[in-house]
Amino acid sequence: MNRKQLTIGLFGFGCIGKGLYEVLQKTPALKASIKSICVKTKNKQRSLSNQYFTFEKNDILQDDTINTIVELIDDADAAFEIVKTALQKGKAVVTANKKMIAEHFEELLHLQKQYNVPLLYEAACCASIPIIRNLEEYYDNDLLESIEGIVNGSTNYILTKTVEKNISFSLALKEAQQKGFAETNPLLDVGGFDAKYKLQILLAHAFGVITQPQNIFNLGINNLYDFELNYAKEKGYKIKLVAYASKNEEGKIISFVLPKFVTSKDKLFSVDDVFNGVKIQSYFCDNQFFVGKGAGAYPTSSAVLSDISALTYDYRYEYKKLNTQHSLANEEDIFLKIFFCVFPYQLILSLNHFLKILKNTISMKTMAL
Amino acid sequence: MNRKQLTIGLFGFGCIGKGLYEVLQKTPALKASIKSICVKTKNKQRSLSNQYFTFEKNDILQDDTINTIVELIDDADAAFEIVKTALQKGKAVVTANKKMIAEHFEELLHLQKQYNVPLLYEAACCASIPIIRNLEEYYDNDLLESIEGIVNGSTNYILTKTVEKNISFSLALKEAQQKGFAETNPLLDVGGFDAKYKLQILLAHAFGVITQPQNIFNLGINNLYDFELNYAKEKGYKIKLVAYASKNEEGKIISFVLPKFVTSKDKLFSVDDVFNGVKIQSYFCDNQFFVGKGAGAYPTSSAVLSDISALTYDYRYEYKKLNTQHSLANEEDIFLKIFFCVFPYQLILSLNHFLKILKNTISMKTMAL
Repeated sequence: MNRKQLTIGLFGFGCIGKGLYEVLQKTPALKASIKSICVKTKNKQRSLSNQYFTFEKNDILQDDTINTIVELIDDADAAFEIVKTALQKGKAVVTANKKMIAEHFEELLHLQKQYNVPLLYEAACCASIPIIRNLEEYYDNDLLESIEGIVNGSTNYILTKTVEKNISFSLALKEAQQKGFAETNPLLDVGGFDAKYKLQILLAHAFGVITQPQNIFNLGINNLYDFELNYAKEKGYKIKLVAYASKNEEGKIISFVLPKFVTSKDKLFSVDDVFNGVKIQSYFCDNQFFVGKGAGAYPTSSAVLSDISALTYDYRYEYKKLNTQHSLANEEDIFLKIFFCVFPYQLILSLNHFLKILKNTISMKTMAL
Repeated sequence: MNRKQLTIGLFGFGCIGKGLYEVLQKTPALKASIKSICVKTKNKQRSLSNQYFTFEKNDILQDDTINTIVELIDDADAAFEIVKTALQKGKAVVTANKKMIAEHFEELLHLQKQYNVPLLYEAACCASIPIIRNLEEYYDNDLLESIEGIVNGSTNYILTKTVEKNISFSLALKEAQQKGFAETNPLLDVGGFDAKYKLQILLAHAFGVITQPQNIFNLGINNLYDFELNYAKEKGYKIKLVAYASKNEEGKIISFVLPKFVTSKDKLFSVDDVFNGVKIQSYFCDNQFFVGKGAGAYPTSSAVLSDISALTYDYRYEYKKLNTQHSLANEEDIFLKIFFCVFPYQLILSLNHFLKILKNTISMKTMAL
């Protein structure tokens, strides 16, 4: 098969952008080279010669010799504008911005179709784990029953440290921030929003469900206190922030992000630090489990690299499951075992009831982003 | 993308063949139907109407309306003849026969090229785990350093039972045979040959190395006695039959199949029963881990189904790494920590020395298949 030659315009030269540049230097067999890099800050010492950089996005977007855009910036709104224009100009796009994809999923789908160009985003879910590609390609005809996973590396790192070092959640968060594993404003991670965006993307590729972020319930780990951590320790459990989706008996999809007590028999128990892990349950292949680094410059740029390579073979997501007509289940239908920190007992409540209790008892700042 | 309509000729109607038939009945969206099934035994009660069956392979191979052959028989030599003829007739082929693929790898590669037809065999390695597809597609540019895994479900089941039930290897084997998890002649599995064939296939897709089964050293679990099992128990280890391949400093590939003491920190520790697990270590994506059922009708037919589905999209292996020029390392270069059952201590020996000792001390029937 003839491989396409890619001339890349890169947006963003942070950790992942730099990682990608290095990775491309080490894989000369790949027919892809970075022509130009658009960055925001003008007066900054950079590891590459100035000739590579521009501060004007149109220098890249209007350059007809550039056929591929790799978008690796933080700002989801600015990212969407870049990606949208790129697709409209007929340029293939690779992005790692889960918030941007989740918030504009339907429009991005439409743009891909309208302008007949591919948009790939494997790095947006679980960094190095090829979860989107496998859901899309490998499990395309298997009858998926559920996916459940640890999909956020920062919160998993924090939760791991509370156990390893026997420290409070807030201290672990502080340490993670000092080490650069968590943002200065960590609510996107610890509030479960990042995990929710990823889950929303996975829903489309696993079950063919397109929805909005606000339709998926998320509760973060920022309301965990010593009481829960000690309870977990006493029982030999670990607390993990888990993204979950399953098909109910009517074929509707239940999905949420919640902290969960995980026993040592659960495969997620041993997924620690910045690792992510995703369990897939299906009718035919039964139980599958993928583990890999969910954060970091190299693991993320490795996924971006795989997408770039796939573009040289004209690969695109076919969104094969979008016609299967699944929809999200009404929240009333969801039953969970809940742990209350004031009176530690387990009981079964409908989520609606649970939400009412939550609203009255636990700070709802996680819901406010 | 327009999907190809597949008309399938199926060889073999054992567990996996039956599983595939059921699986296809449950996935009507897939444009694939079984036209005819070739079986060996004439007078056997079967779950399908007689009109589906033939006892003459040419009824299928010479049928021009059949564009796809799915080969699921036991006999590797007969399987090769079927696959060879099918490819020569321009029919796409899906097979699960690792022994056949391993023994004829180079010829099968040549036939695919010469007749411009795809041959897919995801089910041949680790059944439900999409390991070949991921090595081929997703890690196509990452710099792989090693793969290590439990790739044989039967031996893993046996080893798990020795621990769970605290029974001897021979008793666990007997039980596995009674339950249908191990063959009446189990040497293919317990001698590490099945694992070796799989490793040989993985070598091509991971590192681009084509070799012969006799060039990979394998030692099975059939020489394990209570002494080793008790030693593992005492130390909190598990014994796992591990297939291993890594790149050494000169870029040469070291590979072997051996029973290994695995500590609880190793991800393979918790891969029990008929599950398989494969660890991938690479420069960019770091540590990746895949787990899934490595045996059974449904998990295997699920992988066959994925290959069938991929054929409807004109997918084929590109064997992208065959030009990377890696070769197998000389056995002299391999260093291992060895456990001796007579005097339990660990020491480092070159494999050559190890083999000499093995030849003198341990029954070599595993080498004789």
